[in-house]
This record gives sequence, structure tokens and C-alpha cells, in this order.
Amino acid sequence: MTWVEVNAAPELIHTPPLRLKQKSADRTALNTDMYCLLKCSPLILAVAVCHGWLFGDFVGKQKELDEISLWPLPQKFQSSAVAFKLSPGSFQIVHAKQSSAGPSCSILVNAFRRYFEYMFGDLKKHEKSRKKVYDSDLAELQVWITSADPECDGYPSLQNNINKTDISDFPRFAHRGILLDSSRHFLPLKVILANLVTMAMNKFNVFHWHIVDDPSFPYMSRTFPDLSQKGAYHPFTHVYTPSDVKMVIEFARMRGIRVIPEFDTPGHTQSWGNGIKNLLTPCYSGSSPSGTFGPVNPILNSSYDFMTQFFKEISTVFPDAYIHLGGDEVDFSCWKSNPDIKKFMVQQGFGTDYSKLESFYIQRLLDIVAATKKGYMVWQEVFDNGVKLKADTQIHVWKERPQYQDEMAKVTAAGFNALLSTPWYLNRISYGQDWVNIYKADPQNFTGTDAQKKLVIGGEACLWGEYVDATNLTPRLWPRASAVAERLWSDKSVTDVGNAYKRLVQHRCRMVKRGIPAEPLFVGHCRQEYMGL
Amino acid sequence: MTWVEVNAAPELIHTPPLRLKQKSADRTALNTDMYCLLKCSPLILAVAVCHGWLFGDFVGKQKELDEISLWPLPQKFQSSAVAFKLSPGSFQIVHAKQSSAGPSCSILVNAFRRYFEYMFGDLKKHEKSRKKVYDSDLAELQVWITSADPECDGYPSLQNNINKTDISDFPRFAHRGILLDSSRHFLPLKVILANLVTMAMNKFNVFHWHIVDDPSFPYMSRTFPDLSQKGAYHPFTHVYTPSDVKMVIEFARMRGIRVIPEFDTPGHTQSWGNGIKNLLTPCYSGSSPSGTFGPVNPILNSSYDFMTQFFKEISTVFPDAYIHLGGDEVDFSCWKSNPDIKKFMVQQGFGTDYSKLESFYIQRLLDIVAATKKGYMVWQEVFDNGVKLKADTQIHVWKERPQYQDEMAKVTAAGFNALLSTPWYLNRISYGQDWVNIYKADPQNFTGTDAQKKLVIGGEACLWGEYVDATNLTPRLWPRASAVAERLWSDKSVTDVGNAYKRLVQHRCRMVKRGIPAEPLFVGHCRQEYMGL
Repeated sequence: MTWVEVNAAPELIHTPPLRLKQKSADRTALNTDMYCLLKCSPLILAVAVCHGWLFGDFVGKQKELDEISLWPLPQKFQSSAVAFKLSPGSFQIVHAKQSSAGPSCSILVNAFRRYFEYMFGDLKKHEKSRKKVYDSDLAELQVWITSADPECDGYPSLQNNINKTDISDFPRFAHRGILLDSSRHFLPLKVILANLVTMAMNKFNVFHWHIVDDPSFPYMSRTFPDLSQKGAYHPFTHVYTPSDVKMVIEFARMRGIRVIPEFDTPGHTQSWGNGIKNLLTPCYSGSSPSGTFGPVNPILNSSYDFMTQFFKEISTVFPDAYIHLGGDEVDFSCWKSNPDIKKFMVQQGFGTDYSKLESFYIQRLLDIVAATKKGYMVWQEVFDNGVKLKADTQIHVWKERPQYQDEMAKVTAAGFNALLSTPWYLNRISYGQDWVNIYKADPQNFTGTDAQKKLVIGGEACLWGEYVDATNLTPRLWPRASAVAERLWSDKSVTDVGNAYKRLVQHRCRMVKRGIPAEPLFVGHCRQEYMGL
Repeated sequence: MTWVEVNAAPELIHTPPLRLKQKSADRTALNTDMYCLLKCSPLILAVAVCHGWLFGDFVGKQKELDEISLWPLPQKFQSSAVAFKLSPGSFQIVHAKQSSAGPSCSILVNAFRRYFEYMFGDLKKHEKSRKKVYDSDLAELQVWITSADPECDGYPSLQNNINKTDISDFPRFAHRGILLDSSRHFLPLKVILANLVTMAMNKFNVFHWHIVDDPSFPYMSRTFPDLSQKGAYHPFTHVYTPSDVKMVIEFARMRGIRVIPEFDTPGHTQSWGNGIKNLLTPCYSGSSPSGTFGPVNPILNSSYDFMTQFFKEISTVFPDAYIHLGGDEVDFSCWKSNPDIKKFMVQQGFGTDYSKLESFYIQRLLDIVAATKKGYMVWQEVFDNGVKLKADTQIHVWKERPQYQDEMAKVTAAGFNALLSTPWYLNRISYGQDWVNIYKADPQNFTGTDAQKKLVIGGEACLWGEYVDATNLTPRLWPRASAVAERLWSDKSVTDVGNAYKRLVQHRCRMVKRGIPAEPLFVGHCRQEYMGL
């Protein structure tokens, strides 16, 4: 039944599939919405693809688009012609009898509520305005029924048909992450939370928080308050307090998202040096200090004492089993200029191979972090330099040379878990539809055995902060990151760009409707345009 | 005198120069803020560069930055060490005795109010919170006076020193425009108004409203309501009503901004065909119509009858002396397929030169528009094709080939006014600081006589709508368009990129502070970050 009502803007309720159950062979996969259900057995369930309140000429075209707007595409789904009515008064989301989770799972309760809102939020608004119309003395209300629904005596329902659909779903990769950089530009909490909400809509399950770096140190440490006091852009307005950090972690947890913080050393640490005396290597110009500083000083015991205390704090603040330790892009020029470092190189028999000094530092750092019972992720250089790593280390591949396919092969051949980011540096932009190349990249597209392929745990879309802050982060990230989301969630065979385009256009309008300024893919419109600035 | 107050966030009041008078030899230059003053004689005046409420270590660095943050750079300014106090209770913006404008100029009254708000808006907020602090039983308030100001017994003032500065200013070019495209994506009114506000902050004075195009026709015509009824993305939610258009024009006028609408024909008119029968050329596949349509049909009298009525409406709705008539990118393939058109070509003796047919159409259109007493702007193709043009026609240069320098030389050699956009297609994006090349382009940088250079009336930054809508338009446009703003306003000699960078960083923070999500140029921060999403 489709109603057309004068003075009521047409609405279309885009309902994402409710994945009430899912396959869980993938034990580390944290479904962004159904976190609690990891231990469930595989199951198939009925799921809703809603058709909306359609308007005049738009009916045919819109209906077709809606049917294919699932994103990321489920592993299996089968829609049928059997139609059900759906109304907020009688519809419930309930725990199945066979479910191993129940009302005590607060994450599920929250997810049920969130999806109910997504499904019926607008409807409630319209019910109100409809009542108003019926109660008031409006001279004329034209109701135009375009379907042959026999229930034309009943109250008009904004939303009605829902096709019976079976969905069986599970993620292809366990690690589906987004990296945000809060050091190059400070990201207000509001922006981080909004992007966690959007990550959940796209079934991302890891927020890689590149929280500090050279330009600023916004993480407020209880143990070393000077780090942010002297290293943040501003000690009060541009910091994340312990309470902020807790809120981010809990907000993420409720959406099935892990928060993995990155504290990158020994390079990328300029801002650390403001708060911690003697942490960084003094650079020399000839025979005297130049006044500038390089990477963490790897030859002082005090550096390791600091790291021990610092990572002890970090390991308690962040509950996730993993910490990202960075280890990328160490510039050797300062170390090379420093006479004490040069002496140390000779003593250790490193010759002039400064990557050995880097490895010396990293090795001690890894031992420090391992003692906190955390696993660690590192950027690929740490592996490339031959540092001895724990078996469960996750190697994060990001460099363009050598080709990432070769690096993925090498990392997995050595038996390590690999994580891909090279093709997903979303900070890099170009004119036109660059989501297509993002979509085409595949983390398992390299030459290797099945065993190697299984060591690929997923990937991350990275939005480095040189050119983004609160003003432009969200539209730059979405829906381009949605392309990564589908690559990491859906089956390997889901590669049809034309089909993806149609669904992604609808998916981005769904995000816009929910208040997220996801940018357009190309010419067109959303039924509800973005209402912010 | 600088005060530091515990619990009060440090504030910095960035005050743009108040251009209370300006040179007006350039009669068509509409100062974005002082529209009424066009007829004034040249004058020099004292202007404020405010220093703010500075905080601890930031004082020195911040002060230095503030002093150079004027944007666009005035023609002449001289700051001195003489300092005045400035407070909202005693400061007024008044009409000078010699001014030819007075209180009856509502645009000036509005501008005075707007700049007073920019200057003291935040101060008022803080005065409130300060009172609260003084009235309450706060145990400790640390006030730290870092200057030797003798008035330390008085109430703390958030804002104080203002250096005596003489500014003499006027725009280099009369036409400083921004093109927004509301056809490829519909732009909600809110977005258009916010960008008019930002244009005023950057001394742009022309809003080139590319209001309709192939994808949609959001302009609601009183004469031909079917144009938007059948040609808009949605007939109610994605249209500009007559009232919307009026509001845009008045909102712009109050900010010294002209609104020049573009109704591009005979190409780029697919959406027109939905509402007006027989307006577009039927394309043929072999000997029968293919069902698709091409440019406006130039061989039917009904096309010209329609244009006569339509532009009669447009000429009354839009008060500006100019209308942009488009005339770009006419695809001849449909005309070539149509047997009636081919017959007409023979009759007219055009041979197979379809640009002659295009010129035939444009010639008649120009006569129609000239009859409404409007001047017209056209894209460069119209000039390239040798159409006979009124002497006051403005030729809009946009193509990359031939090089725009050659085209500017040709247009001005023929005695026409020229307007540059080629290097300022801001919809085109690339990774990194692309504002630098935008900044370096100069509309008078071509080989030609002084007389030719004088025919260059300015330029426009264009933001075509393929990839932008309400979600990302504002940060994509600003501060990149600010680079164009300075090029078109400031003296030709203002080309130092390093100096511009420092000022532009501050200028973009000023926009952010005023609620505009202007994106960052590079790593760094604003005292007040963007508070929206």
C-alpha cells in the first residue's frame, strides 16, 4: 500500500539488514553490531529490506535501488516476493531461543535500540504530523492510493511491505579498521564519536587511534602529565583527558569496535620531547649540539625506564589486547651526528648500520610491552629490519615500495599476521571517483599458499591528518572508507563495481539521512539532503 | 595589558580591518562590505588590528601571527607602535563627516553591526562568565599581569591594545566571483547563505549562480512551473522558490554581493526538456527518433518564443545588470543526426559547419536578452565561434586549451571584457597544498597592451557540482577560494607565498571561529576548532 499525502514530504526508510545471528568460525571478528554473539553457531535468519513511502513517478526507480542497497553486501541473501507488513507498534527485535546471548548483553540491547531507531525514527515523526492533520480542520486532504492493498480503511501506514529475506552472514576478515590521526590536527571528541557511529554502520570493528605524533601530544597521561601539558597544541583545549579516553573506549565497545592506540616510537616523537627531558637524541652540528632533537635516545637507560612506566599506564588505560607501537620512518641523520651514539655503535659492533640501532631499541621496547601482557602491532619497517618478534605480532603493511603484494607475501611467508593499508591511505585524494581503486584492492591478492592467505587478518583505511581536521574529516572519510568496509567484510567474489556503485549511492544517502556528512560519489541527490553546514 | 584567568579559555579576537572608506576610481567594484561607498572620494583611514587575550607561552608567537593576518592584503597599510585601548562600551563605528553615505544606507548599518559582532561577540560571552566568577565564592582566582599597563586597578579587559594603523584600500579587479552549481547536486539554502557570508569575509562581490544544468532544474519559474515540477530532483524539496531566490539576492546585497544567474543554453539543457515539450532537439538513430534529446532545437520558432518569455521573467527576478547565458560545450552529434536540422543547414547555407548553427541560435538569444535591457556574460566558446556580440559583453575564459593566456589576449584584443576562471576550477582537487598554484595565477599575465589589460575585469573561482553537495562544499571551497580572493583584490605585487601562507593560516582560523568549516592548509591548529560535525 502506498499513500501519497499532500503537505507531507515523502520519506523512504532505508533499513539495513539486521544481522541477528552470524557465523563465528572467525573468533576474533567483532561484528560491529552484534559483538556479544561471537560464540554463536552459524545460523540463517530472516531479515528486513524495507520499502518506503514512495512518491509519484519515483516509485519504480526508487524501489529497484532500495532492493540492492545493502552495504557491505552480506555473504548470502535471498529475497522473495513474500511480503510482510512492518509497523513500530508490533515489530520487535528479540533474542532467538537458540541464541547464546540474552538480555544481559548490554551491547545487544543497545544495538536493538539503535536499529529500531534507524528503522522507525522518522516514522514516529510522521505519525505525529499525520495526527495533526487528522485532528485539525484542514479543508482538504488528498489521499491518493496507488496500490491495491485491501486495507484501505485502516490508518495510512508510512511504511509497509517488507520482503521475506534470508541472510547468512559473517565477516571475511577479522580486523577491519580505521586509522584517525589526532596529532597533526586535534580532533574534537564529537568528531571521533560521530565517526565511531559511522564505522558501526559500515561494520568496521577497529578504531586505530594514532593519538600522538611529532606535531602534538594530546593524550593526557596520569603518570607523565607534562607530555600533554607541554606537548599538546594547547594544554586545556587540545587534549584528551582520561575521562575522554574512557568515553571513546566505551562508546566504541557498545558498537562492537575495539580501540587500538598507537604510540609510535622511536621516530615521530618530537612532541614527546617537550615534556620529557633527555628522551630525544640531541642532534649535533659538527662538534656541538645544534639545539634540535632526533628520535628517542636509544643508548640511555632512562629512555627504557620511561617507556616501562609509560606503557604500563597505556596497558591499563586501553583494554584491548593489542597496542600499536609504530616503528616507522626512523630518520638516522640525527643519530649519525651524535658522538655518544657513534661511540655506542662501535661498542655494540653495529658498524655504520643504524637500522641495527633501531632494532636494538625496538627489541627492548617489545620486551617492555610484552611484559604488560599485551600483543603488539608494528609498521612493516620493524619486520623489514629483522627485529625478533613474538609469533602473534601483527605487521602493518603501508609502504608503496616494495609493492605491497610482495611485502604481504614476505610477511606471511615468515609466519606473521599481516594487515594491509597501502591502497587505503584515504588522506590521499584525487579528482573523480577514487573509491573505485580503493574498492578493487584486495589484501589476499598476492602470490602465496593458502596458509599464507589465512595469516592476512584484514586491513585498515588510514586518514592521516596533514590536511584534515574537524572541518573536513567526515566527508573525506565517508563513503570512501565504505569501499574498504565492503572489501573487508563481504565475500572475495563481490567485485562488481557497477553493482557496488548503485548500492553505495544508496548507502551514502542512508548515512546522510542519519546525520553523517558523507560526500557524494557523483551527480545525483538524496531524498533527504544533509542538514548541517 | 594581558590577563590570564583560571577557568577561562584563552580567546583571541581576530578583527579584520574595517575599511571605512575606500578608493573608488573602480566604479564597478562592489566592496563586499561597503557597497554603498562606491561614489566616495579616495581616502585613508585608521584601522584596527586587534590583539587579544593572550595566554602564557603563546603570547609572543601569537602576537606576531596576528599582526600579519590581514586577508586579502590591503593596498597599503602602515602599523605603528602607538597603541589604543578598545572596549565594546566606548567603541563605535561611525560615518565620517566627509562620507557621502549616511545612516540611510542600510547596507552600511548592517555591515557596522556585523563587524561589531565579529570584534566583540566573544568578549560579551566572556564578560558574563567573568562576572559569574567575581560574584561567586571561588576560592582562588589567579590573575597574572604580563604587561606594564598602569590601569591594573580597573576591571580586567579581555581585549585591549590596538595599534594605530593607516589603511588605504581598493580592489584591483571589479569582478571577484564564486560560481556554485546547484544542478548537479541541489544545495540547500543554508549552504548558499553560509557561503555568501564567507564570500563577504573574503571580499568577493559576485555570486555566479549556475542554478540549472543537465541533471536538474531547481529554479521554480512562475511562467513555466513545469520546468522545476518535472525537471528538479524533487518538485518540493529540491527547488528554489521565488521567495528563496529573493532571499538569496537580498542576503547577498546586504553583503555587497551581486547575484548573477546562469541559464546555460543551447547545451546543458537536458533537465529543461522534461518540462517544456519540443524545446530540445530529438536525436535520430538512422531514420527514426532514438528517444533521446540533444541541445535546444534551434530551428523552431517555438524555441525562441519560449526563450523570450523565460528571459523576460529572469530579467525581472534578478536585479543585476548582467545575466550569464552559458553557451559552452554544445555537442553537435544530435543535431547531426536529425534530418530536419540537416535540411535547415542546407537552407541556411551552413554546409556542415554546426558551429554556424550554434552561432545562429546564440545570436537570436542575445538579441532576446538585449531586449530585456540586460548585459550578458558568455563562456568563451561563444566568442571563439565568432558570434556578433554587444561591446559590453563579458567573455568568461575557462578552457585549458588553448592556453588561457592566449585566449585572454585574443578576447581583449577584440575589445571585449574578459573574466578568468581556467586556473580556478576549485572542484578539481589534488593531494597537498594546491592553494599555492591557485594563488600564483594572475588574470593579467598575458602578452598584450595596457589597454588590453584594462579590459580584464576580474575572475571567478568555480566549484562545479559533480562531487560536492551540502556535505563537503564549504571545506572544499574555503580557504582555497581565499587564494583567489587575494589575487583579485590585492595589488599585483602581492605574490609572496610564504607571507601569504602565514596570513592565510590565520585567516582560515578566523573563518573557523566564525562558524565556517574552512579546511586546514597543513598541520597545525586553531585556537578555537570547528564545533560542528
